[in-house]
Order: sequence, then structure tokens, then C-alpha cells
Amino acid sequence: MIALELDPAVRALAFLVGTWRGEGAGDYPTIRPFRYREEIRFRHTDKPFLIYTQRTEAVDDGRPLHTEMGYLRGVGEGRVELVVAQHIGFAEISVGSVRDNRLQLKSLHLGRTPTAKAVTGVEREIWLDGDMLRYELRMAMETVPLTKHLQASFHRTAD
Amino acid sequence: MIALELDPAVRALAFLVGTWRGEGAGDYPTIRPFRYREEIRFRHTDKPFLIYTQRTEAVDDGRPLHTEMGYLRGVGEGRVELVVAQHIGFAEISVGSVRDNRLQLKSLHLGRTPTAKAVTGVEREIWLDGDMLRYELRMAMETVPLTKHLQASFHRTAD
Repeated sequence: MIALELDPAVRALAFLVGTWRGEGAGDYPTIRPFRYREEIRFRHTDKPFLIYTQRTEAVDDGRPLHTEMGYLRGVGEGRVELVVAQHIGFAEISVGSVRDNRLQLKSLHLGRTPTAKAVTGVEREIWLDGDMLRYELRMAMETVPLTKHLQASFHRTAD
Repeated sequence: MIALELDPAVRALAFLVGTWRGEGAGDYPTIRPFRYREEIRFRHTDKPFLIYTQRTEAVDDGRPLHTEMGYLRGVGEGRVELVVAQHIGFAEISVGSVRDNRLQLKSLHLGRTPTAKAVTGVEREIWLDGDMLRYELRMAMETVPLTKHLQASFHRTAD
């Protein structure tokens, strides 16, 4: 039903719309592995983009870990652009495509504040697996080539 | 009262916290002047940043115009960093300072998607004027030097 309200340019992204809660695992050569709880929301508008918001918290004590938000823009023929602001002082422009309920994005342009870590590349893959949403995120830093950093899986929940 | 809950690094930004509604005027060499209604929210967290969300709509017919969101980070000694995602395919990293309820920011790094307009510079000034919040935004594009683009004023409202 939701898909009928969406702008044609974002219909292929309809599988994302809603509120998702789940758990993930993080790892990277420079840190200790960790687990997190996460809530993701993709809200539709009457324009050709979805509004994306997200926050994670630690599994052990619930302390807030990360938050980011931005816009997922449908620009025609399955092409997608992502603009994201991250609370750690980092902004990401990524481009990619969506097909068969699978969204693949690679960073095109990364900006950071003077106090932020030197992330140099991000790849995101988000897909529907039955009634679960899953993602994997790979990240490169100045001293680390593109390496798997995060993976998580989600169930759709009521708002 | 709110200021007491804030991380010391963002106490100087306490004047922003809340929901603000007002009107603004836009102008630029490449467009026709326009007027808009705007809602801005700055929400505090228990970390040294505020969450910033914003949306504007046309005064004449209420159609949505612009939306952006991001994080305002206090990094010590009155220095501030802004990370913003804009729905038009644009990400902004700005740095500046806050003093006497006046925040001044200049873009350090601008990223844009392949379909976005060629904005090359942004300066923002936000200040408290009695019980009103005001801002002015100046913008440069590839073909236009830094020029006043937006100004607006707001009253604080209940959420």
C-alpha cells in the first residue's frame, strides 16, 4: 500500500520504508569487536527521496553509540544517491543502485570536521531477506584498506 | 534549566535548544525572490552535540521546499563544527565559533551528488535577538561569489 504513495523514482526503495529494530556486530583492525542494538527508520515523503534516521546503543549497558541521518534519493533507472550526516563529524555522499530489494552504495565524496577520524571510503549494502532487513558496511581509513566493519539484521516494528 | 543538563562543550549553544517556527525570505542572482515558513529544532543529547532538523514550506501554498538535518558539535573553547545533510543531494561540513548567543560558521568541505547543484561555499550566522532567533545564510556557487541567500526569524514554540 505504501508503494502506491511513493514517487516513481523511489518505488524500488519501498521495501525499506518503516521502522526497523535489530542487532549488529562491529569489527575493524583498529578496534575491539563489539555488539550493538540498532533502530533504523526510512520515512517516505511525497518527493523522490526517503528520510533516513538511525541510532545504535551498546548491548551491554545501553549507552548510545552512533547516530546518523540523511536522505536516500531516487534519481531514475534504479540509480540512488545517499547523503548522510554522522554525529562523529563526518558527512558522506554515496551513489549506487537498487534492484530486487537490494541496495548497493559506494562513497563518492567524504567530508569530515577537523576533529573527526580519517575515514576515506564507505560501501553499504542493504537488502531484504525474507521479512528481515540486513546490511553490511565496509569502511576504509587512511591506514586501513576497505574492510568489513558492520553487519546487522532487523525486524520491522510498529512505529 | 536545560543548560544544566548539557555537556559542557555545548553549553554555549543552549540558546538554540528547542523548537522554533518563523518565516524567511530567499533571494539569489539565479532565482526569483521567495518567502517561506520554517520550522527548526535543536535537540540536546547527553553527548557534546545537538541534533539539528529543519524544514521549510512555501508561504503561498504550503508546498514543501527544503529540508536538512545534522549535528552541531561543541569541540571546546567556543569552537563548533556543523555536519549537515541536505535533501537536494548536498552535504556540508562547516566550522566556526559561538559567543554571546551568536553562532558563526563557514563551510570547510562541501560534497554533492552527481545530480546536485554546484554550491561551492556556505556561511551561516545564527543569533538570539531578544526572544527571537534569527539567521542569515550566504552561499557561493561555481558562477556566483558568496552572496546573501536566506534570512529568517523565529519564535520559540512548544514542541
